[in-house]
Amino acid sequence: MPGPRRGTADGPCPIGRAADVLGDRWTLLIMRNATGGTARFDEFKAELDIADNVLADRLRQLVGAGLLARIPYRPEGGGRTRDEYRLTPAGEDLLPVLHALMVWGNTHSESASPTRPMRLVHSACGQSIEPGRRCPHCRRPVPRTETAWIRPWQGDAAQTLGAAATP
Amino acid sequence: MPGPRRGTADGPCPIGRAADVLGDRWTLLIMRNATGGTARFDEFKAELDIADNVLADRLRQLVGAGLLARIPYRPEGGGRTRDEYRLTPAGEDLLPVLHALMVWGNTHSESASPTRPMRLVHSACGQSIEPGRRCPHCRRPVPRTETAWIRPWQGDAAQTLGAAATP
Repeated sequence: MPGPRRGTADGPCPIGRAADVLGDRWTLLIMRNATGGTARFDEFKAELDIADNVLADRLRQLVGAGLLARIPYRPEGGGRTRDEYRLTPAGEDLLPVLHALMVWGNTHSESASPTRPMRLVHSACGQSIEPGRRCPHCRRPVPRTETAWIRPWQGDAAQTLGAAATP
Repeated sequence: MPGPRRGTADGPCPIGRAADVLGDRWTLLIMRNATGGTARFDEFKAELDIADNVLADRLRQLVGAGLLARIPYRPEGGGRTRDEYRLTPAGEDLLPVLHALMVWGNTHSESASPTRPMRLVHSACGQSIEPGRRCPHCRRPVPRTETAWIRPWQGDAAQTLGAAATP
Protein backbone atom coordinates (compact mmCIF):
# COMPACT_ATOMS: atom_id res chain seq x y z
CA MET A 1 0.00 0.00 0.00
CA PRO A 2 2.68 2.59 0.82
CA GLY A 3 4.55 3.18 -2.42
CA PRO A 4 4.27 1.23 -5.66
CA ARG A 5 4.88 -2.53 -5.60
CA ARG A 6 5.67 -4.29 -8.84
CA GLY A 7 3.72 -1.72 -10.80
CA THR A 8 0.16 -2.46 -9.68
CA ALA A 9 -0.16 0.39 -7.15
CA ASP A 10 -0.20 2.92 -9.99
CA GLY A 11 -0.55 0.57 -12.96
CA PRO A 12 -3.20 0.92 -15.65
CA CYS A 13 -5.46 -1.84 -14.24
CA PRO A 14 -7.95 -0.54 -11.64
CA ILE A 15 -8.41 -4.04 -10.18
CA GLY A 16 -4.65 -4.23 -9.68
CA ARG A 17 -4.63 -0.83 -7.98
CA ALA A 18 -7.56 -1.84 -5.76
CA ALA A 19 -5.88 -5.17 -4.94
CA ASP A 20 -2.78 -3.28 -3.91
CA VAL A 21 -4.76 -1.48 -1.21
CA LEU A 22 -7.32 -4.14 -0.33
CA GLY A 23 -5.55 -7.44 -0.97
CA ASP A 24 -5.01 -8.18 2.69
CA ARG A 25 -7.26 -10.10 5.05
CA TRP A 26 -6.95 -7.73 8.02
CA THR A 27 -7.53 -4.72 5.80
CA LEU A 28 -10.81 -6.18 4.55
CA LEU A 29 -11.93 -7.05 8.08
CA ILE A 30 -11.04 -3.58 9.39
CA MET A 31 -12.94 -1.90 6.53
CA ARG A 32 -15.89 -4.24 7.10
CA ASN A 33 -16.07 -3.19 10.75
CA ALA A 34 -15.43 0.49 9.97
CA THR A 35 -18.34 0.35 7.51
CA GLY A 36 -20.40 -1.11 10.37
CA GLY A 37 -19.59 1.84 12.62
CA THR A 38 -16.44 0.78 14.46
CA ALA A 39 -14.11 3.76 14.85
CA ARG A 40 -11.84 3.36 17.85
CA PHE A 41 -8.61 1.41 18.18
CA ASP A 42 -9.79 -0.57 21.21
CA GLU A 43 -13.08 -1.43 19.51
CA PHE A 44 -11.31 -2.81 16.42
CA LYS A 45 -8.96 -4.72 18.69
CA ALA A 46 -11.74 -6.32 20.71
CA GLU A 47 -13.90 -7.13 17.70
CA LEU A 48 -11.15 -8.53 15.48
CA ASP A 49 -8.87 -10.26 17.99
CA ILE A 50 -5.92 -8.63 16.23
CA ALA A 51 -2.47 -7.85 17.60
CA ASP A 52 -1.83 -4.18 18.48
CA ASN A 53 1.07 -3.78 16.08
CA VAL A 54 -0.80 -5.35 13.16
CA LEU A 55 -3.86 -3.20 13.79
CA ALA A 56 -1.76 -0.04 14.12
CA ASP A 57 0.06 -0.91 10.89
CA ARG A 58 -3.13 -1.52 8.89
CA LEU A 59 -4.84 1.60 10.24
CA ARG A 60 -1.80 3.68 9.30
CA GLN A 61 -1.81 2.20 5.80
CA LEU A 62 -5.56 2.81 5.42
CA VAL A 63 -5.16 6.44 6.51
CA GLY A 64 -2.25 6.78 4.07
CA ALA A 65 -4.31 5.28 1.26
CA GLY A 66 -7.15 7.69 2.00
CA LEU A 67 -9.79 5.15 3.09
CA LEU A 68 -9.91 6.20 6.74
CA ALA A 69 -9.38 9.60 8.35
CA ARG A 70 -8.00 10.19 11.84
CA ILE A 71 -10.32 12.39 13.89
CA PRO A 72 -9.32 13.40 17.41
CA TYR A 73 -11.75 12.82 20.26
CA ARG A 74 -11.60 13.17 24.04
CA PRO A 75 -12.50 9.94 25.88
CA GLU A 76 -15.67 10.03 28.01
CA GLY A 77 -13.79 9.50 31.27
CA GLY A 78 -11.36 12.33 30.50
CA GLY A 79 -7.68 11.86 29.83
CA ARG A 80 -5.61 12.67 26.78
CA THR A 81 -7.09 13.15 23.35
CA ARG A 82 -7.21 10.06 21.15
CA ASP A 83 -7.98 9.38 17.51
CA GLU A 84 -10.98 7.80 15.89
CA TYR A 85 -10.77 6.23 12.44
CA ARG A 86 -13.67 7.31 10.26
CA LEU A 87 -14.55 6.42 6.71
CA THR A 88 -13.56 8.88 4.01
CA PRO A 89 -15.62 9.03 0.79
CA ALA A 90 -13.21 6.45 -0.70
CA GLY A 91 -13.81 4.27 2.35
CA GLU A 92 -17.59 4.68 2.10
CA ASP A 93 -17.37 3.65 -1.55
CA LEU A 94 -16.14 0.21 -0.50
CA LEU A 95 -19.71 -0.76 0.28
CA PRO A 96 -20.26 -2.44 -3.12
CA VAL A 97 -17.02 -4.41 -2.68
CA LEU A 98 -18.04 -5.55 0.81
CA HIS A 99 -21.54 -6.36 -0.43
CA ALA A 100 -20.14 -8.45 -3.29
CA LEU A 101 -17.90 -10.29 -0.82
CA MET A 102 -20.96 -10.89 1.38
CA VAL A 103 -22.97 -12.35 -1.51
CA TRP A 104 -20.05 -14.55 -2.55
CA GLY A 105 -19.44 -15.69 1.03
CA ASN A 106 -23.13 -16.41 1.60
CA THR A 107 -23.21 -18.52 -1.56
CA HIS A 108 -19.85 -20.27 -1.60
CA SER A 109 -18.75 -20.73 1.99
CA GLU A 110 -20.32 -22.07 5.10
CA SER A 111 -20.46 -21.10 8.72
CA ALA A 112 -19.48 -23.78 11.25
CA SER A 113 -22.51 -22.77 13.32
CA PRO A 114 -25.63 -22.53 11.17
CA THR A 115 -27.06 -19.01 10.92
CA ARG A 116 -29.35 -17.10 8.61
CA PRO A 117 -27.36 -15.18 5.99
CA MET A 118 -26.10 -11.64 6.49
CA ARG A 119 -28.02 -9.01 4.52
CA LEU A 120 -27.81 -5.38 3.48
CA VAL A 121 -31.19 -3.76 4.09
CA HIS A 122 -33.17 -0.56 3.79
CA SER A 123 -33.59 0.16 7.50
CA ALA A 124 -36.86 2.02 6.92
CA CYS A 125 -38.61 -1.10 5.59
CA GLY A 126 -36.29 -4.06 6.20
CA GLN A 127 -36.09 -5.02 2.52
CA SER A 128 -32.80 -6.48 1.22
CA ILE A 129 -31.08 -4.00 -1.08
CA GLU A 130 -28.05 -3.68 -3.31
CA PRO A 131 -25.69 -0.73 -2.92
CA GLY A 132 -26.59 2.14 -5.26
CA ARG A 133 -29.95 0.61 -6.24
CA ARG A 134 -33.47 1.69 -5.40
CA CYS A 135 -35.22 -0.21 -2.62
CA PRO A 136 -37.30 -2.91 -4.36
CA HIS A 137 -40.04 -2.33 -1.77
CA CYS A 138 -40.12 1.47 -1.44
CA ARG A 139 -39.03 2.09 -5.05
CA ARG A 140 -36.85 5.00 -4.03
CA PRO A 141 -33.09 5.53 -3.75
CA VAL A 142 -31.80 4.48 -0.35
CA PRO A 143 -29.67 7.10 1.39
CA ARG A 144 -26.66 5.89 3.30
CA THR A 145 -28.28 6.86 6.59
CA GLU A 146 -31.06 4.31 5.86
CA THR A 147 -28.66 1.55 4.80
CA ALA A 148 -27.89 -1.11 7.38
CA TRP A 149 -26.39 -4.56 7.81
CA ILE A 150 -28.30 -7.35 9.48
CA ARG A 151 -26.00 -9.92 11.08
CA PRO A 152 -28.43 -12.57 12.32
CA TRP A 153 -25.82 -14.17 14.58
CA GLN A 154 -25.63 -10.86 16.47
CA GLY A 155 -29.42 -10.40 16.64
CA ASP A 156 -32.15 -9.15 14.36
CA ALA A 157 -31.47 -5.42 14.72
CA ALA A 158 -30.43 -3.52 11.60
CA GLN A 159 -27.02 -1.93 12.18
CA THR A 160 -26.82 1.38 10.35
CA LEU A 161 -23.60 2.10 8.47
CA GLY A 162 -20.85 4.06 10.17
CA ALA A 163 -20.93 7.84 9.85
CA ALA A 164 -18.24 9.27 7.64
CA ALA A 165 -15.61 11.74 8.73
CA THR A 166 -17.06 15.24 8.53
CA PRO A 167 -14.89 17.11 6.08
CA MET B 1 -7.20 -20.39 3.28
CA PRO B 2 -6.03 -23.89 4.22
CA GLY B 3 -7.76 -24.57 7.51
CA PRO B 4 -9.49 -22.08 9.78
CA ARG B 5 -7.53 -19.06 10.99
CA ARG B 6 -8.77 -17.16 14.03
CA GLY B 7 -12.32 -18.21 13.38
CA THR B 8 -13.13 -16.30 10.18
CA ALA B 9 -12.64 -19.21 7.72
CA ASP B 10 -15.81 -20.86 9.03
CA GLY B 11 -17.19 -18.05 11.17
CA PRO B 12 -20.73 -16.71 10.89
CA CYS B 13 -19.76 -13.61 8.85
CA PRO B 14 -19.71 -14.23 5.09
CA ILE B 15 -17.42 -11.23 4.51
CA GLY B 16 -14.97 -12.73 6.98
CA ARG B 17 -15.13 -16.09 5.23
CA ALA B 18 -14.64 -14.43 1.84
CA ALA B 19 -11.75 -12.35 3.20
CA ASP B 20 -10.12 -15.52 4.43
CA VAL B 21 -9.96 -16.83 0.85
CA LEU B 22 -9.55 -13.56 -1.05
CA GLY B 23 -7.69 -11.27 1.33
CA ASP B 24 -4.41 -11.58 -0.50
CA ARG B 25 -3.08 -9.40 -3.28
CA TRP B 26 -1.72 -12.23 -5.47
CA THR B 27 -4.93 -14.21 -5.07
CA LEU B 28 -6.98 -11.29 -6.36
CA LEU B 29 -4.62 -10.77 -9.30
CA ILE B 30 -4.65 -14.48 -10.20
CA MET B 31 -8.46 -14.59 -10.08
CA ARG B 32 -8.63 -11.39 -12.14
CA ASN B 33 -6.50 -12.98 -14.85
CA ALA B 34 -8.26 -16.36 -14.62
CA THR B 35 -11.56 -14.51 -15.13
CA GLY B 36 -9.97 -12.92 -18.20
CA GLY B 37 -9.10 -16.33 -19.65
CA THR B 38 -5.63 -17.09 -18.33
CA ALA B 39 -5.36 -20.78 -17.46
CA ARG B 40 -1.75 -22.00 -17.65
CA PHE B 41 1.02 -21.68 -15.10
CA ASP B 42 3.44 -20.04 -17.53
CA GLU B 43 0.81 -17.55 -18.68
CA PHE B 44 0.05 -16.47 -15.11
CA LYS B 45 3.78 -16.21 -14.45
CA ALA B 46 4.45 -14.05 -17.49
CA GLU B 47 1.42 -11.82 -16.97
CA LEU B 48 1.85 -11.27 -13.24
CA ASP B 49 5.62 -11.20 -12.83
CA ILE B 50 5.22 -13.51 -9.85
CA ALA B 51 7.74 -15.95 -8.37
CA ASP B 52 7.20 -19.64 -9.19
CA ASN B 53 6.80 -20.72 -5.58
CA VAL B 54 4.33 -17.95 -4.76
CA LEU B 55 2.25 -18.70 -7.85
CA ALA B 56 2.29 -22.45 -7.15
CA ASP B 57 1.25 -21.79 -3.56
CA ARG B 58 -1.66 -19.51 -4.47
CA LEU B 59 -2.89 -21.83 -7.24
CA ARG B 60 -2.82 -24.74 -4.81
CA GLN B 61 -4.80 -22.72 -2.26
CA LEU B 62 -7.33 -21.62 -4.87
CA VAL B 63 -7.83 -25.22 -6.03
CA GLY B 64 -8.21 -26.26 -2.39
CA ALA B 65 -10.74 -23.48 -1.76
CA GLY B 66 -12.73 -24.59 -4.81
CA LEU B 67 -12.28 -21.46 -6.94
CA LEU B 68 -10.09 -23.07 -9.60
CA ALA B 69 -10.06 -26.62 -10.96
CA ARG B 70 -7.02 -28.43 -12.33
CA ILE B 71 -7.67 -29.81 -15.79
CA PRO B 72 -4.98 -31.85 -17.56
CA TYR B 73 -3.93 -30.86 -21.09
CA ARG B 74 -1.21 -32.01 -23.48
CA PRO B 75 1.01 -29.14 -24.68
CA GLU B 76 0.81 -28.31 -28.40
CA GLY B 77 4.44 -29.27 -29.03
CA GLY B 78 3.96 -32.64 -27.32
CA GLY B 79 5.65 -33.65 -24.09
CA ARG B 80 4.19 -34.62 -20.77
CA THR B 81 0.67 -33.73 -19.72
CA ARG B 82 0.29 -30.53 -17.76
CA ASP B 83 -2.50 -28.86 -15.82
CA GLU B 84 -4.62 -25.87 -16.66
CA TYR B 85 -6.38 -23.88 -13.95
CA ARG B 86 -9.97 -23.18 -14.89
CA LEU B 87 -12.68 -21.30 -13.05
CA THR B 88 -15.17 -23.36 -11.06
CA PRO B 89 -18.70 -21.97 -10.52
CA ALA B 90 -17.43 -20.41 -7.27
CA GLY B 91 -14.58 -18.85 -9.25
CA GLU B 92 -16.96 -17.56 -11.94
CA ASP B 93 -19.07 -16.00 -9.22
CA LEU B 94 -16.22 -13.69 -8.28
CA LEU B 95 -17.12 -11.48 -11.23
CA PRO B 96 -19.23 -9.10 -9.08
CA VAL B 97 -16.35 -8.80 -6.59
CA LEU B 98 -13.85 -8.06 -9.38
CA HIS B 99 -16.28 -5.63 -10.99
CA ALA B 100 -16.76 -3.80 -7.66
CA LEU B 101 -12.98 -3.60 -7.26
CA MET B 102 -12.75 -2.22 -10.82
CA VAL B 103 -15.33 0.48 -10.12
CA TRP B 104 -13.61 1.41 -6.87
CA GLY B 105 -10.17 1.44 -8.52
CA ASN B 106 -11.43 3.52 -11.45
CA THR B 107 -12.90 6.07 -9.03
CA HIS B 108 -10.40 6.20 -6.19
CA SER B 109 -6.99 5.43 -7.61
CA GLU B 110 -4.97 6.67 -10.51
CA SER B 111 -2.79 5.14 -13.17
CA ALA B 112 0.69 6.59 -13.53
CA SER B 113 0.18 6.55 -17.31
CA PRO B 114 -3.18 8.07 -18.26
CA THR B 115 -5.59 5.62 -19.85
CA ARG B 116 -9.31 5.34 -20.41
CA PRO B 117 -10.99 3.34 -17.65
CA MET B 118 -11.41 -0.43 -17.75
CA ARG B 119 -15.00 -1.54 -18.40
CA LEU B 120 -17.17 -4.65 -18.31
CA VAL B 121 -19.20 -4.79 -21.52
CA HIS B 122 -21.82 -6.73 -23.42
CA SER B 123 -19.63 -7.94 -26.28
CA ALA B 124 -22.59 -8.09 -28.68
CA CYS B 125 -23.17 -4.32 -28.48
CA GLY B 126 -20.25 -2.80 -26.56
CA GLN B 127 -22.46 -1.29 -23.84
CA SER B 128 -21.04 -1.13 -20.30
CA ILE B 129 -22.84 -3.58 -18.05
CA GLU B 130 -23.00 -4.68 -14.44
CA PRO B 131 -22.70 -8.36 -13.53
CA GLY B 132 -26.09 -10.04 -13.25
CA ARG B 133 -27.96 -7.09 -14.78
CA ARG B 134 -29.66 -6.74 -18.14
CA CYS B 135 -27.77 -4.89 -20.84
CA PRO B 136 -29.02 -1.26 -20.70
CA HIS B 137 -28.83 -1.14 -24.51
CA CYS B 138 -30.24 -4.55 -25.56
CA ARG B 139 -32.55 -4.80 -22.52
CA ARG B 140 -31.88 -8.51 -22.17
CA PRO B 141 -29.90 -10.62 -19.69
CA VAL B 142 -26.26 -10.92 -20.73
CA PRO B 143 -24.95 -14.49 -20.81
CA ARG B 144 -21.43 -15.06 -19.59
CA THR B 145 -20.29 -15.90 -23.12
CA GLU B 146 -21.22 -12.34 -24.17
CA THR B 147 -19.58 -10.69 -21.18
CA ALA B 148 -16.16 -9.17 -21.74
CA TRP B 149 -13.58 -6.84 -20.24
CA ILE B 150 -12.22 -3.91 -22.17
CA ARG B 151 -8.74 -2.91 -20.99
CA PRO B 152 -8.01 0.21 -23.08
CA TRP B 153 -4.27 0.08 -22.30
CA GLN B 154 -4.17 -3.32 -24.05
CA GLY B 155 -6.27 -2.17 -27.02
CA ASP B 156 -9.93 -1.66 -27.83
CA ALA B 157 -10.86 -5.32 -28.29
CA ALA B 158 -13.39 -6.82 -25.88
CA GLN B 159 -11.83 -9.79 -24.08
CA THR B 160 -14.44 -12.44 -23.42
CA LEU B 161 -14.41 -14.04 -19.96
CA GLY B 162 -12.53 -17.27 -19.43
CA ALA B 163 -14.37 -20.51 -20.05
CA ALA B 164 -15.16 -22.46 -16.91
CA ALA B 165 -14.00 -25.98 -16.21
CA THR B 166 -16.41 -28.41 -17.83
CA PRO B 167 -17.85 -30.47 -15.02
